[in-house]
Amino acid sequence: MKWTWVLVGFLLCFCGLSLGKDALDFPDYDGKDRVHHLSAKNYKSILKKYDVMVVYYHDHPGSSRVAQRQFEIEELNLELAAQVLEEFDDEDVGVGLVDAKLDKDIAKKLGLDESDSIYIITDDEVIEYDGELSADTLVEFIFDVLEDPVEIIDNSRELKGFKNIEEDIKLMGYFKSHKSDRKNFEAYADAAEEFHPHIKFYATFSAKVAKALDMKLNEVDFYEPFMDNPVVIPGKPYTEEELVEFIEDNDKPTLRKLQPHNMYEIWDDDADDDEHIIAFAEESDPDGYEFLEILKEVAEDNTDHPHLSIVWIDPDDFPLLVPHWEKIFGIDLSHPQIGVVDTNDADSVWLDMDDGEDMPTVDELEDWIEDALSGYIEKVLKDTHVEHLKLPL
Amino acid sequence: MKWTWVLVGFLLCFCGLSLGKDALDFPDYDGKDRVHHLSAKNYKSILKKYDVMVVYYHDHPGSSRVAQRQFEIEELNLELAAQVLEEFDDEDVGVGLVDAKLDKDIAKKLGLDESDSIYIITDDEVIEYDGELSADTLVEFIFDVLEDPVEIIDNSRELKGFKNIEEDIKLMGYFKSHKSDRKNFEAYADAAEEFHPHIKFYATFSAKVAKALDMKLNEVDFYEPFMDNPVVIPGKPYTEEELVEFIEDNDKPTLRKLQPHNMYEIWDDDADDDEHIIAFAEESDPDGYEFLEILKEVAEDNTDHPHLSIVWIDPDDFPLLVPHWEKIFGIDLSHPQIGVVDTNDADSVWLDMDDGEDMPTVDELEDWIEDALSGYIEKVLKDTHVEHLKLPL
Repeated sequence: MKWTWVLVGFLLCFCGLSLGKDALDFPDYDGKDRVHHLSAKNYKSILKKYDVMVVYYHDHPGSSRVAQRQFEIEELNLELAAQVLEEFDDEDVGVGLVDAKLDKDIAKKLGLDESDSIYIITDDEVIEYDGELSADTLVEFIFDVLEDPVEIIDNSRELKGFKNIEEDIKLMGYFKSHKSDRKNFEAYADAAEEFHPHIKFYATFSAKVAKALDMKLNEVDFYEPFMDNPVVIPGKPYTEEELVEFIEDNDKPTLRKLQPHNMYEIWDDDADDDEHIIAFAEESDPDGYEFLEILKEVAEDNTDHPHLSIVWIDPDDFPLLVPHWEKIFGIDLSHPQIGVVDTNDADSVWLDMDDGEDMPTVDELEDWIEDALSGYIEKVLKDTHVEHLKLPL
Repeated sequence: MKWTWVLVGFLLCFCGLSLGKDALDFPDYDGKDRVHHLSAKNYKSILKKYDVMVVYYHDHPGSSRVAQRQFEIEELNLELAAQVLEEFDDEDVGVGLVDAKLDKDIAKKLGLDESDSIYIITDDEVIEYDGELSADTLVEFIFDVLEDPVEIIDNSRELKGFKNIEEDIKLMGYFKSHKSDRKNFEAYADAAEEFHPHIKFYATFSAKVAKALDMKLNEVDFYEPFMDNPVVIPGKPYTEEELVEFIEDNDKPTLRKLQPHNMYEIWDDDADDDEHIIAFAEESDPDGYEFLEILKEVAEDNTDHPHLSIVWIDPDDFPLLVPHWEKIFGIDLSHPQIGVVDTNDADSVWLDMDDGEDMPTVDELEDWIEDALSGYIEKVLKDTHVEHLKLPL
């Protein structure tokens, strides 16, 4: 995996806060070494000590001062994660390092494919972490890993909570709860484990919830992000393999959100194309919200389009990248933007929305995207010999 | 301000990502020194160089190795923020340090009240930053500072975006757009500057938007967080002072969300009471969502209660604190929790919800909170001589 470290999370406490001794204080990093350097000699016994092991399979650090310092900061960040995880009661979670030069064979034995990556090793599986390398995003991801792969929806308020989740791919299955008849639910749960925690699996045993969703027994519905209406997976009841196959065939949604915990997964996924449609919109800003509503409608209208995949970035989620993106793309991110970026040279064409004053209609945006996908815009870009361009509709 | 550093944000880039040269890479920290040490000699000339100055008014670092290292890490974090802000085109933003021991007089001249705090100094004002000390949260806050204090709502989609903002206090004013008749709008904008960016101010000049909100000309509506229905500020048209007074009298909402950018503001605010109602609920989890819906109803029913102020914490926003809270409060944060925490000794009483299986109704939760506020629960706690307790309804 191509990898960029975002080191986050030194928690240094100066003084107690008022709310109950240190009840709401951030924990100090206490300076204790907890991160294990895994070697041929020790890795088996260390792995035995933990329920879950977080392994950073890192490139051998260079000898320059900068490289040494970078590696030191990475280690400190993992130390902080290890300290936080040590306090966690439910499971024993350890943190370790594997050096890609010195201990390639261990990586192979553990099933770690690529260096410069973090893996979470549980009893059953090895899960790659494709998020920002910050202690907080990593720790949150580990909590997600430790949760059950299938979450049960019991009542209408929980159903409202289920409907409220729109940024991720999610599935819902309706099954019999009776223990003697769990075969179909178990196939579903096994499929869930394959994608956990990247894809969210829900199930209900309640006829009332199923009725509200208009679902038949043993049916599984697949929801793309930002789509109110699911696709009913055909051919119920399903085997685990049938479910896995359907999900793998459908895991490139029309509209996706770039999030700290999945950013590299999405970027890597885009690498096989030559150009990408990227939309910047700040959800908490009325302008951005307006544009996002239009974008969602376009996605909903075009969900069957085979080549359309828009990546939505909320600048609020990546404040440290905002000035960088503004410079590289020649745009102002205090207003919504949509553009086509050439992956080879970062040339880009952006839709001219007059600083958010002149939003496109759904139809206009669809036409613009159609042009973009047809290569028209790329051609304009080549003809004009400029790096960044604002085009009206 | 009581202050805890959360150091976030070393951006070390190992290798280019696929999406267009380094277009979507995190910027490296380039090692250049950008943070100014402000002294009596240089502070005037440095302040002149920037439109906005971010100043960390820090306690003099101790001489121990740990204290030195902590300060070093703090500085590096600010260096990263400074580097990111240097790329920002709209305004020149500088970052500086003032030492509370060596340069107290400069702090006084700049209007910095308390050490161990970050201040953002603009032409007109000094704004205290009460959020988590992480580069990303700080940089995002600075972007908010640089935005206009009043955001204009033009149409129904933007209005939907306005309604979607529920986690913060917000105000909406309806004014005439005509330039000759801007007096009332200007009083509103002046009031907005007093609270910017902590409280969000919106305005509309559109009769259609005003009609949808059932507003009369020159009316200003005040929205508590999580309340659909606003309070109409009485006595329109208002002077700036009348608006400021009303807001100051109403800035302790019934239900508030603890967020990284306002966490210390909320905690400090609670310091004058002896006990606090804290609710943990993960919005992206159906259980948590269910509980939050109940909580919002309770808040809506009791918005006029003079002493009720519930702090909602979404554990997803503070993953590094989760194990710490679970330990200190003796609770499991994978399910929703509500409790009363004694600020003096961190003793706490939590409502027994059977791991989220047995949610209270709105009425039951109201009764429980009433008990909590009446001191009944505190008494139970004293009588039982335990630190943490789970109580059924």
